Amino acid sequence: MTHAKDNFIAWLKSAHAMEEQAITMLTAQTRRLENYPDLKARMLQHLEETKNHAEVLQTLLNNLSGAPSTLKDIAGRIAATVQGIPGLLMSDEVVKFTAAAYSFEHLEIAFYRMLITAADELGETEAQGIFEKILAEEVAMATWLEDNLDPITRVFLMRDERDLQAKR
Amino acid sequence: MTHAKDNFIAWLKSAHAMEEQAITMLTAQTRRLENYPDLKARMLQHLEETKNHAEVLQTLLNNLSGAPSTLKDIAGRIAATVQGIPGLLMSDEVVKFTAAAYSFEHLEIAFYRMLITAADELGETEAQGIFEKILAEEVAMATWLEDNLDPITRVFLMRDERDLQAKR
Repeated sequence: MTHAKDNFIAWLKSAHAMEEQAITMLTAQTRRLENYPDLKARMLQHLEETKNHAEVLQTLLNNLSGAPSTLKDIAGRIAATVQGIPGLLMSDEVVKFTAAAYSFEHLEIAFYRMLITAADELGETEAQGIFEKILAEEVAMATWLEDNLDPITRVFLMRDERDLQAKR
Repeated sequence: MTHAKDNFIAWLKSAHAMEEQAITMLTAQTRRLENYPDLKARMLQHLEETKNHAEVLQTLLNNLSGAPSTLKDIAGRIAATVQGIPGLLMSDEVVKFTAAAYSFEHLEIAFYRMLITAADELGETEAQGIFEKILAEEVAMATWLEDNLDPITRVFLMRDERDLQAKR
Protein backbone atom coordinates (compact mmCIF):
# COMPACT_ATOMS: atom_id res chain seq x y z
CA MET A 1 0.00 0.00 0.00
CA THR A 2 1.32 3.44 -0.90
CA HIS A 3 1.66 6.30 1.52
CA ALA A 4 -0.96 8.23 -0.46
CA LYS A 5 -3.39 5.37 0.16
CA ASP A 6 -2.61 5.50 3.91
CA ASN A 7 -3.50 9.19 3.89
CA PHE A 8 -6.61 8.51 1.87
CA ILE A 9 -7.92 5.89 4.30
CA ALA A 10 -7.02 8.04 7.33
CA TRP A 11 -8.99 10.96 5.89
CA LEU A 12 -11.88 8.67 5.00
CA LYS A 13 -12.01 7.45 8.61
CA SER A 14 -12.01 11.05 9.80
CA ALA A 15 -14.85 11.92 7.44
CA HIS A 16 -16.82 8.93 8.72
CA ALA A 17 -16.22 10.01 12.34
CA MET A 18 -17.39 13.54 11.47
CA GLU A 19 -20.58 12.21 9.89
CA GLU A 20 -21.29 10.02 12.94
CA GLN A 21 -20.80 13.02 15.16
CA ALA A 22 -22.98 15.19 12.91
CA ILE A 23 -25.79 12.66 13.43
CA THR A 24 -25.46 13.01 17.22
CA MET A 25 -25.35 16.82 17.03
CA LEU A 26 -28.23 17.19 14.58
CA THR A 27 -30.41 14.75 16.53
CA ALA A 28 -29.86 16.65 19.79
CA GLN A 29 -30.12 20.14 18.33
CA THR A 30 -33.16 19.70 16.11
CA ARG A 31 -35.18 18.67 19.17
CA ARG A 32 -34.58 22.15 20.61
CA LEU A 33 -35.52 24.22 17.57
CA GLU A 34 -39.29 24.38 18.16
CA ASN A 35 -39.53 28.13 17.50
CA TYR A 36 -37.62 28.02 14.22
CA PRO A 37 -39.60 25.62 12.00
CA ASP A 38 -37.75 26.38 8.73
CA LEU A 39 -34.36 25.80 10.33
CA LYS A 40 -35.65 22.67 12.03
CA ALA A 41 -37.07 21.25 8.78
CA ARG A 42 -33.83 21.91 6.86
CA MET A 43 -31.69 20.38 9.63
CA LEU A 44 -33.94 17.30 9.78
CA GLN A 45 -33.53 16.90 6.01
CA HIS A 46 -29.75 17.15 6.45
CA LEU A 47 -29.90 14.61 9.30
CA GLU A 48 -31.33 12.06 6.83
CA GLU A 49 -28.63 12.97 4.28
CA THR A 50 -25.99 12.66 7.01
CA LYS A 51 -27.16 9.18 8.05
CA ASN A 52 -26.83 8.13 4.43
CA HIS A 53 -23.32 9.67 4.20
CA ALA A 54 -22.16 7.73 7.28
CA GLU A 55 -23.49 4.49 5.83
CA VAL A 56 -21.94 5.02 2.39
CA LEU A 57 -18.56 5.93 3.93
CA GLN A 58 -18.68 2.84 6.17
CA THR A 59 -19.24 0.60 3.16
CA LEU A 60 -16.41 2.30 1.31
CA LEU A 61 -14.10 1.89 4.32
CA ASN A 62 -14.96 -1.79 4.64
CA ASN A 63 -14.25 -2.33 0.93
CA LEU A 64 -10.97 -0.43 0.98
CA SER A 65 -9.42 -1.48 4.27
CA GLY A 66 -11.60 -4.15 5.74
CA ALA A 67 -11.68 -2.21 9.01
CA PRO A 68 -14.55 -0.16 10.44
CA SER A 69 -13.92 3.28 11.91
CA THR A 70 -13.05 3.30 15.60
CA LEU A 71 -12.64 7.04 16.06
CA LYS A 72 -15.59 7.56 18.39
CA ASP A 73 -13.45 9.31 20.98
CA ILE A 74 -12.05 11.75 18.43
CA ALA A 75 -15.54 12.43 17.12
CA GLY A 76 -16.66 13.21 20.66
CA ARG A 77 -13.86 15.69 21.09
CA ILE A 78 -14.73 17.41 17.84
CA ALA A 79 -18.34 17.67 18.90
CA ALA A 80 -17.48 19.17 22.28
CA THR A 81 -15.36 21.62 20.41
CA VAL A 82 -17.74 22.77 17.73
CA GLN A 83 -20.68 22.92 20.08
CA GLY A 84 -18.50 24.68 22.63
CA ILE A 85 -17.04 27.52 20.58
CA PRO A 86 -19.98 29.83 20.16
CA GLY A 87 -21.41 28.56 23.45
CA LEU A 88 -18.57 30.36 25.13
CA LEU A 89 -19.34 33.51 23.26
CA MET A 90 -23.09 33.96 23.32
CA SER A 91 -26.17 33.18 25.32
CA ASP A 92 -28.43 33.11 22.24
CA GLU A 93 -28.69 29.49 21.34
CA VAL A 94 -30.28 29.52 17.90
CA VAL A 95 -27.83 32.02 16.44
CA LYS A 96 -24.82 30.26 17.94
CA PHE A 97 -26.14 26.94 16.68
CA THR A 98 -26.43 28.32 13.14
CA ALA A 99 -22.92 29.82 13.21
CA ALA A 100 -21.43 26.59 14.64
CA ALA A 101 -23.25 24.45 12.07
CA TYR A 102 -22.00 26.75 9.29
CA SER A 103 -18.39 26.41 10.48
CA PHE A 104 -18.73 22.63 10.94
CA GLU A 105 -20.18 22.26 7.42
CA HIS A 106 -17.04 23.93 6.08
CA LEU A 107 -14.80 21.53 8.01
CA GLU A 108 -16.73 18.73 6.29
CA ILE A 109 -16.48 20.51 2.92
CA ALA A 110 -12.69 20.82 3.32
CA PHE A 111 -12.44 17.12 4.18
CA TYR A 112 -14.47 16.00 1.18
CA ARG A 113 -12.41 18.22 -1.12
CA MET A 114 -9.22 16.63 0.28
CA LEU A 115 -10.73 13.16 -0.21
CA ILE A 116 -11.74 13.97 -3.79
CA THR A 117 -8.17 15.08 -4.53
CA ALA A 118 -6.68 11.99 -2.87
CA ALA A 119 -9.14 9.68 -4.67
CA ASP A 120 -8.24 11.36 -7.97
CA GLU A 121 -4.50 10.88 -7.32
CA LEU A 122 -5.13 7.20 -6.53
CA GLY A 123 -7.50 6.57 -9.43
CA GLU A 124 -10.27 5.61 -7.00
CA THR A 125 -13.01 6.81 -9.35
CA GLU A 126 -15.93 5.14 -7.57
CA ALA A 127 -14.94 6.70 -4.24
CA GLN A 128 -14.42 10.06 -5.94
CA GLY A 129 -17.97 9.96 -7.33
CA ILE A 130 -19.35 9.19 -3.86
CA PHE A 131 -17.43 12.09 -2.29
CA GLU A 132 -18.61 14.49 -5.00
CA LYS A 133 -22.23 13.56 -4.35
CA ILE A 134 -21.80 14.03 -0.57
CA LEU A 135 -19.91 17.28 -1.10
CA ALA A 136 -22.83 18.67 -3.11
CA GLU A 137 -25.17 18.00 -0.17
CA GLU A 138 -22.77 19.59 2.35
CA VAL A 139 -22.41 22.66 0.12
CA ALA A 140 -26.21 22.91 -0.24
CA MET A 141 -26.57 22.76 3.56
CA ALA A 142 -23.88 25.43 4.04
CA THR A 143 -25.52 27.66 1.43
CA TRP A 144 -28.89 27.29 3.14
CA LEU A 145 -27.35 28.27 6.49
CA GLU A 146 -25.61 31.26 4.89
CA ASP A 147 -28.84 32.43 3.25
CA ASN A 148 -30.81 32.00 6.47
CA LEU A 149 -28.35 33.42 9.00
CA ASP A 150 -29.69 36.94 8.41
CA PRO A 151 -33.42 36.13 8.89
CA ILE A 152 -32.65 33.82 11.85
CA THR A 153 -30.63 36.61 13.51
CA ARG A 154 -33.42 39.15 12.90
CA VAL A 155 -36.10 36.84 14.31
CA PHE A 156 -33.92 36.14 17.35
CA LEU A 157 -33.26 39.86 18.00
CA MET A 158 -36.95 40.70 17.59
CA ARG A 159 -38.12 37.93 19.95
CA ASP A 160 -35.39 38.73 22.47
CA GLU A 161 -36.43 42.41 22.47
CA ARG A 162 -40.12 41.50 22.78
CA ASP A 163 -39.39 39.14 25.70
CA LEU A 164 -37.48 41.92 27.45
CA GLN A 165 -40.35 44.35 26.92
CA ALA A 166 -42.77 41.76 28.29
CA LYS A 167 -40.76 41.55 31.52
CA ARG A 168 -40.87 45.31 32.19
CA MET B 1 -29.76 50.30 26.30
CA THR B 2 -31.91 47.82 24.40
CA HIS B 3 -31.47 44.09 24.52
CA ALA B 4 -30.57 44.13 20.82
CA LYS B 5 -27.71 46.49 21.64
CA ASP B 6 -26.51 44.13 24.40
CA ASN B 7 -26.41 41.33 21.86
CA PHE B 8 -24.67 43.57 19.34
CA ILE B 9 -21.89 44.51 21.78
CA ALA B 10 -21.49 40.92 22.99
CA TRP B 11 -21.05 39.73 19.39
CA LEU B 12 -18.66 42.57 18.68
CA LYS B 13 -16.52 41.52 21.66
CA SER B 14 -16.54 37.94 20.40
CA ALA B 15 -15.46 39.08 16.94
CA HIS B 16 -12.64 41.09 18.49
CA ALA B 17 -11.50 38.08 20.54
CA MET B 18 -11.57 35.94 17.39
CA GLU B 19 -9.42 38.44 15.49
CA GLU B 20 -6.91 38.61 18.38
CA GLN B 21 -6.73 34.85 18.36
CA ALA B 22 -6.39 34.75 14.58
CA ILE B 23 -3.30 36.97 14.95
CA THR B 24 -1.74 34.49 17.39
CA MET B 25 -2.59 31.52 15.18
CA LEU B 26 -1.44 33.10 11.91
CA THR B 27 1.81 34.33 13.47
CA ALA B 28 2.65 30.87 14.82
CA GLN B 29 1.53 28.92 11.74
CA THR B 30 3.09 31.07 9.01
CA ARG B 31 6.53 30.50 10.59
CA ARG B 32 6.12 26.78 9.87
CA LEU B 33 5.05 26.99 6.22
CA GLU B 34 8.51 27.15 4.62
CA ASN B 35 7.74 24.54 1.94
CA TYR B 36 4.48 26.16 0.82
CA PRO B 37 5.47 29.70 -0.27
CA ASP B 38 2.13 30.64 -1.90
CA LEU B 39 0.14 29.62 1.17
CA LYS B 40 2.63 31.40 3.42
CA ALA B 41 2.44 34.63 1.38
CA ARG B 42 -1.38 34.62 1.38
CA MET B 43 -1.54 33.93 5.13
CA LEU B 44 0.97 36.71 5.84
CA GLN B 45 -1.19 39.10 3.82
CA HIS B 46 -4.21 37.99 5.84
CA LEU B 47 -2.22 38.45 9.07
CA GLU B 48 -1.83 42.15 8.20
CA GLU B 49 -5.54 42.41 7.37
CA THR B 50 -6.37 40.65 10.64
CA LYS B 51 -4.25 43.07 12.71
CA ASN B 52 -6.17 45.90 11.10
CA HIS B 53 -9.53 44.18 11.85
CA ALA B 54 -8.62 43.80 15.53
CA GLU B 55 -7.67 47.48 15.74
CA VAL B 56 -10.81 48.72 13.99
CA LEU B 57 -13.06 46.54 16.18
CA GLN B 58 -11.29 47.74 19.32
CA THR B 59 -11.94 51.38 18.36
CA LEU B 60 -15.56 50.57 17.62
CA LEU B 61 -15.95 48.79 20.96
CA ASN B 62 -14.44 51.72 22.83
CA ASN B 63 -16.80 54.13 21.07
CA LEU B 64 -19.88 52.00 21.66
CA SER B 65 -19.38 50.74 25.20
CA GLY B 66 -16.32 52.45 26.61
CA ALA B 67 -14.95 49.04 27.58
CA PRO B 68 -12.16 47.04 25.91
CA SER B 69 -12.56 43.33 25.25
CA THR B 70 -11.48 41.07 28.11
CA LEU B 71 -12.17 37.74 26.46
CA LYS B 72 -8.58 36.55 26.20
CA ASP B 73 -9.35 33.29 27.96
CA ILE B 74 -12.22 32.53 25.61
CA ALA B 75 -10.04 33.34 22.63
CA GLY B 76 -7.46 30.91 23.94
CA ARG B 77 -10.04 28.17 24.21
CA ILE B 78 -11.24 28.78 20.68
CA ALA B 79 -7.67 28.60 19.41
CA ALA B 80 -6.95 25.34 21.20
CA THR B 81 -10.13 24.06 19.68
CA VAL B 82 -9.64 25.05 16.07
CA GLN B 83 -5.98 24.09 16.03
CA GLY B 84 -6.87 20.87 17.81
CA ILE B 85 -9.66 19.49 15.62
CA PRO B 86 -7.80 18.34 12.54
CA GLY B 87 -4.70 17.78 14.68
CA LEU B 88 -6.56 14.87 16.20
CA LEU B 89 -7.39 13.50 12.80
CA MET B 90 -4.27 13.75 10.69
CA SER B 91 -0.52 13.74 10.88
CA ASP B 92 -0.16 15.93 7.77
CA GLU B 93 0.24 19.41 9.12
CA VAL B 94 -0.15 21.60 6.06
CA VAL B 95 -3.39 20.00 4.92
CA LYS B 96 -4.88 20.05 8.41
CA PHE B 97 -3.84 23.68 8.80
CA THR B 98 -5.59 24.62 5.56
CA ALA B 99 -8.80 22.77 6.51
CA ALA B 100 -8.80 24.31 10.02
CA ALA B 101 -8.17 27.81 8.63
CA TYR B 102 -11.01 27.31 6.15
CA SER B 103 -13.41 26.27 8.93
CA PHE B 104 -12.26 29.13 11.21
CA GLU B 105 -12.73 31.67 8.38
CA HIS B 106 -16.36 30.54 8.14
CA LEU B 107 -16.86 30.99 11.87
CA GLU B 108 -15.62 34.55 11.37
CA ILE B 109 -17.81 34.99 8.28
CA ALA B 110 -20.89 33.87 10.26
CA PHE B 111 -20.04 36.32 13.05
CA TYR B 112 -19.62 39.28 10.70
CA ARG B 113 -22.90 38.44 8.99
CA MET B 114 -24.63 38.38 12.40
CA LEU B 115 -23.02 41.70 13.29
CA ILE B 116 -24.08 43.26 9.97
CA THR B 117 -27.67 42.17 10.66
CA ALA B 118 -27.58 43.46 14.25
CA ALA B 119 -26.00 46.78 13.15
CA ASP B 120 -28.69 47.12 10.48
CA GLU B 121 -31.46 46.49 13.05
CA LEU B 122 -29.91 49.12 15.36
CA GLY B 123 -29.26 51.69 12.61
CA GLU B 124 -25.50 51.54 13.34
CA THR B 125 -24.56 52.37 9.75
CA GLU B 126 -20.90 53.22 10.40
CA ALA B 127 -20.35 49.91 12.21
CA GLN B 128 -22.23 48.08 9.45
CA GLY B 129 -19.90 49.54 6.82
CA ILE B 130 -16.86 48.44 8.83
CA PHE B 131 -18.20 44.88 9.16
CA GLU B 132 -18.97 44.68 5.45
CA LYS B 133 -15.42 45.70 4.59
CA ILE B 134 -13.96 43.11 7.01
CA LEU B 135 -16.38 40.44 5.77
CA ALA B 136 -15.15 40.98 2.20
CA GLU B 137 -11.57 40.26 3.34
CA GLU B 138 -12.62 37.14 5.28
CA VAL B 139 -14.57 35.86 2.27
CA ALA B 140 -11.57 36.52 -0.01
CA MET B 141 -9.34 34.56 2.37
CA ALA B 142 -11.83 31.66 2.53
CA THR B 143 -12.13 31.63 -1.28
CA TRP B 144 -8.35 31.52 -1.63
CA LEU B 145 -8.16 28.58 0.78
CA GLU B 146 -10.94 26.77 -1.08
CA ASP B 147 -9.22 27.32 -4.45
CA ASN B 148 -5.86 26.18 -3.07
CA LEU B 149 -6.91 23.18 -0.99
CA ASP B 150 -6.69 20.91 -4.05
CA PRO B 151 -3.14 21.94 -5.14
CA ILE B 152 -1.91 21.98 -1.52
CA THR B 153 -3.28 18.45 -1.00
CA ARG B 154 -1.67 17.21 -4.24
CA VAL B 155 1.70 18.75 -3.35
CA PHE B 156 1.51 17.20 0.12
CA LEU B 157 0.63 13.73 -1.23
CA MET B 158 3.42 13.95 -3.82
CA ARG B 159 6.06 15.01 -1.28
CA ASP B 160 4.86 12.48 1.27
CA GLU B 161 5.10 9.69 -1.32
CA ARG B 162 8.55 10.88 -2.47
CA ASP B 163 9.80 10.97 1.13
CA LEU B 164 8.57 7.42 1.65
CA GLN B 165 10.31 6.26 -1.54
CA ALA B 166 13.52 7.96 -0.38
CA LYS B 167 13.47 5.94 2.85
CA ARG B 168 13.22 2.57 1.08
